[in-house]
Amino acid sequence: MTIETAIAALKDALGDRISTSRADREFHGRSETHFPDRPADAVAFPESTEEVSRIVRICADHGCPIIAWGTGTSLEAHAVPVRGGVSLDMMRMNRVLAIHPEDMDVVVQPGVTREDLNAELRATGLFFPVDPGANASLGGMAATRASGTTAVRYGTMRENVLSMEVVLADGRIIRTGSRARKSSAGYDLTHLMIGSEGTLGIITEMTLRLQGQPEAISAAICDFPDISAAVDTVIETIQMAIPVARIEFVDELTARAFNIYAKADLPERPHLFLEFHGSENAVREQAETVGEIVRSHGGGDFRWSTKAEERTALWKMRHNAFYAQKSLKPESDAIATDICVPISRLAEAVTETRADIEASGLLGPMLGHVGDGNFHCTFLLTPGAEAEKRAAKDLLHRLSLRALDMGGTVTGEHGVGIGKLGYMQQEHGEAWSVMSEIKRALDPDNILNPGKLVALN
Amino acid sequence: MTIETAIAALKDALGDRISTSRADREFHGRSETHFPDRPADAVAFPESTEEVSRIVRICADHGCPIIAWGTGTSLEAHAVPVRGGVSLDMMRMNRVLAIHPEDMDVVVQPGVTREDLNAELRATGLFFPVDPGANASLGGMAATRASGTTAVRYGTMRENVLSMEVVLADGRIIRTGSRARKSSAGYDLTHLMIGSEGTLGIITEMTLRLQGQPEAISAAICDFPDISAAVDTVIETIQMAIPVARIEFVDELTARAFNIYAKADLPERPHLFLEFHGSENAVREQAETVGEIVRSHGGGDFRWSTKAEERTALWKMRHNAFYAQKSLKPESDAIATDICVPISRLAEAVTETRADIEASGLLGPMLGHVGDGNFHCTFLLTPGAEAEKRAAKDLLHRLSLRALDMGGTVTGEHGVGIGKLGYMQQEHGEAWSVMSEIKRALDPDNILNPGKLVALN
Ligand SMILES: Cc1cc2nc3c(=O)[nH]c(=O)nc-3n(C[C@H](O)[C@H](O)[C@H](O)COP(=O)(O)OP(=O)(O)OC[C@H]3O[C@@H](n4cnc5c(N)ncnc54)[C@H](O)[C@@H]3O)c2cc1C
Ligand SMILES: Cc1cc2nc3c(=O)[nH]c(=O)nc-3n(C[C@H](O)[C@H](O)[C@H](O)COP(=O)(O)OP(=O)(O)OC[C@H]3O[C@@H](n4cnc5c(N)ncnc54)[C@H](O)[C@@H]3O)c2cc1C
Repeated sequence: MTIETAIAALKDALGDRISTSRADREFHGRSETHFPDRPADAVAFPESTEEVSRIVRICADHGCPIIAWGTGTSLEAHAVPVRGGVSLDMMRMNRVLAIHPEDMDVVVQPGVTREDLNAELRATGLFFPVDPGANASLGGMAATRASGTTAVRYGTMRENVLSMEVVLADGRIIRTGSRARKSSAGYDLTHLMIGSEGTLGIITEMTLRLQGQPEAISAAICDFPDISAAVDTVIETIQMAIPVARIEFVDELTARAFNIYAKADLPERPHLFLEFHGSENAVREQAETVGEIVRSHGGGDFRWSTKAEERTALWKMRHNAFYAQKSLKPESDAIATDICVPISRLAEAVTETRADIEASGLLGPMLGHVGDGNFHCTFLLTPGAEAEKRAAKDLLHRLSLRALDMGGTVTGEHGVGIGKLGYMQQEHGEAWSVMSEIKRALDPDNILNPGKLVALN
Repeated sequence: MTIETAIAALKDALGDRISTSRADREFHGRSETHFPDRPADAVAFPESTEEVSRIVRICADHGCPIIAWGTGTSLEAHAVPVRGGVSLDMMRMNRVLAIHPEDMDVVVQPGVTREDLNAELRATGLFFPVDPGANASLGGMAATRASGTTAVRYGTMRENVLSMEVVLADGRIIRTGSRARKSSAGYDLTHLMIGSEGTLGIITEMTLRLQGQPEAISAAICDFPDISAAVDTVIETIQMAIPVARIEFVDELTARAFNIYAKADLPERPHLFLEFHGSENAVREQAETVGEIVRSHGGGDFRWSTKAEERTALWKMRHNAFYAQKSLKPESDAIATDICVPISRLAEAVTETRADIEASGLLGPMLGHVGDGNFHCTFLLTPGAEAEKRAAKDLLHRLSLRALDMGGTVTGEHGVGIGKLGYMQQEHGEAWSVMSEIKRALDPDNILNPGKLVALN
């Protein structure tokens, strides 16, 4: 009943689909940011739901932790096996199983990435809208309740997963729903799994909602004299219920980072990056209305990207913002974080945070999916400089408390992982105990990603 | 440790906010349709969350069932206390606690009805979109995951509740989320409670998303030569992603019922009832496009309701469809049911069902929120005619199986209650056991609406 005996049994069952090579173990023990590595004891590469079920049963028999792994892009060390055990690399389960254009849904395995899915969908006139920048796996995106630049219009993973197939901690395989658009038949297990970060089950199949590719798309950027002007523009746009497809804020530091990293020529001022979807008329109408709001807040003219290539370049630049920001201080250690507040508190949250970062003396560019009240900071630290690290941790702490004070959440989209675990009690109070009770009911031996999300030991 | 000792203890605690009058007990033991009555043993009328918590604690101490009650409009006998116990009438908790126009949300107690909420919101330019016809309580609507005519555009209760306050089976009070638009912080307890039909907790407060009142609204009806033409029009409209606000199907029998009950002058043919929301231009554009689809399927011209009063009359007629249908056979017993299928199977599901009803010889008008793949049948039975009752039960059974065969669900919006409980195993398989495990974790003594939704005894 140990990790070792589990791995021995798994080797018998899986042959070369389990690895204990140092490279594999270390790769599956890393995170995208500043958390300490912890190599997995072994890495399994299942190729079917039945195989996942078999692996989970073996691990359950031996009390061995099992941690699902997608593309490893989560930012709070979600997939790091903090108590050792087997990393379950889901990336060989990467088939698009069925496209139903008439129902506007698609059935995928969890290892399909969002870019691969959209490439497959291109000819259908449909697309999957959730867009967290990174080319993450759809299973990992569901498990972290990911969102991104288009959530303001199309919602997050919460709104875009119709149902799932899941392997539970004892190896049982369940389906959480049907392909019907709505149902009132029982508890919503689909939403229970979304955002559960691999602690309640392993997602082995998903039915996702698709959207029609809009008849017309146009994208634009514009700059603002200060942060409040940009944020107030967003707030007014949302309150007027203009269905913008994207409305992204970047601060002056991030604008500078784009100039360096992506050879852009942006004025070093706060910007909004916008995209409009709809009929030709609707797009024009939306753009005109938002243009007026921009002007009323002292913003500059729209710089349009009408051609598809220009738009791709624009959003590629935006998606690489994290790496661009890092180029502001080459060789630095980066800490990325996100909070989300009610939109009425957004301007206050952003400006207080800006002032706080400035007072700390750290380099900390900001940006955000501000249409949802969600924004991010990246702190760029000199490796080994302990004082900077302490200052960053203090900033992070104050930022999280600020979110909670303002009636928001310590994470709008990145998730809990290790980095936000310490705030769960404060954010949820007694509801956090309820989460533990659910975890205990579905995974009594705590083998699925132990040490994460809930308070079990 | 009995229901009697619980009631005695509740009388001490609540004074005149608990009743054992026959009228109160019987009123809270009825359902809207054909299920047998079962009077509650007592009815409590809490006025605050703390009082709900106190009542639940007392019931828990005495092992006494406790069944939340909203407006009693649910159609599958959800709120009938099948094992006796205390009916918890939530309708004195009927205050709108806070309107946040800038965040487009509202905080309400569960006993606020949807019409009352929209009356309170009128001056703000905002509205709450979910619309199940009946003027139900918002708590009951959340508990049944209700939807209605506008779900095709604005979603169901699943999409429109941001967070809740809930009293659990042991009296603990939790909050399931914040007012932030999105969050990745932990398990989604909000969605776990939505649709749980009073079996996991008592909802004592809700934060709901609001929508901006559209700049322009227009409504129209049009008739079709046959059911398929109407349904195919809907399917094409949805597949073209036209953001219709409402697209409701009624069959020829229901058209006749409107003529009788609401003194309408509709041709006795299948109809669509439509509503468009948006800017003046968007509404015109949508109506033109849908008009073309209608024509291509041989539908008649739009008959417009442009004035607000005409629209109100139109939707009032639609909302009273159940009572109108009953007028087709005065003094009849009515059985109402709903299923939901992927939209690609909708035409098939509707025409097969129509043929099945005709073969049975019963009078069974149909209508539906067909934009979601959801439709309803009402069977009108001669009281006491056992053969009709058996035929209706057989029809219901085949209808449910048809939904499952087509990859759908046995209930799109009415919920499980008693009527659909027998299909849960077949619809969910092993996932139904998981629902029981969650129920057991949160309500180990099975005091919250026992005998419903899960397989516990
Ligand atoms: C540059 C950059 C930008 C980013 N921008 C955004 C953004 O805008 N919005 C946003 O939301 N996120 C963003 N992220 C974070 C990241 O992309 C997401 O967290 C992503 O959703 C995780 O997917 P993954 O496949 O990488 O999962 P992993 O990191 O491999 O795993 C994440 C978690 O999901 C679990 N998991 C993975 N697969 C499964 C499965 N099949 N079943 C059950 N559990 C599973 C893991 O156990 C782990 O707990 C960004 C990341 C980077 C590096
Ligand atoms: C004419 C007519 C038309 C209808 N059309 C539609 C339709 O189009 N779409 C649709 O979805 N429904 C429709 N319905 C059904 C009905 O309106 C819904 O089921 C409604 O959502 C139930 O709300 P209620 O307040 O009446 O709840 P009740 O019937 O009183 O209770 C329903 C369930 O919710 C639980 N409950 C109630 N309050 C709470 C609370 N505060 N906390 C926890 N649990 C609670 C009860 O225990 C029970 O299980 C229709 C009904 C009628 C009569």
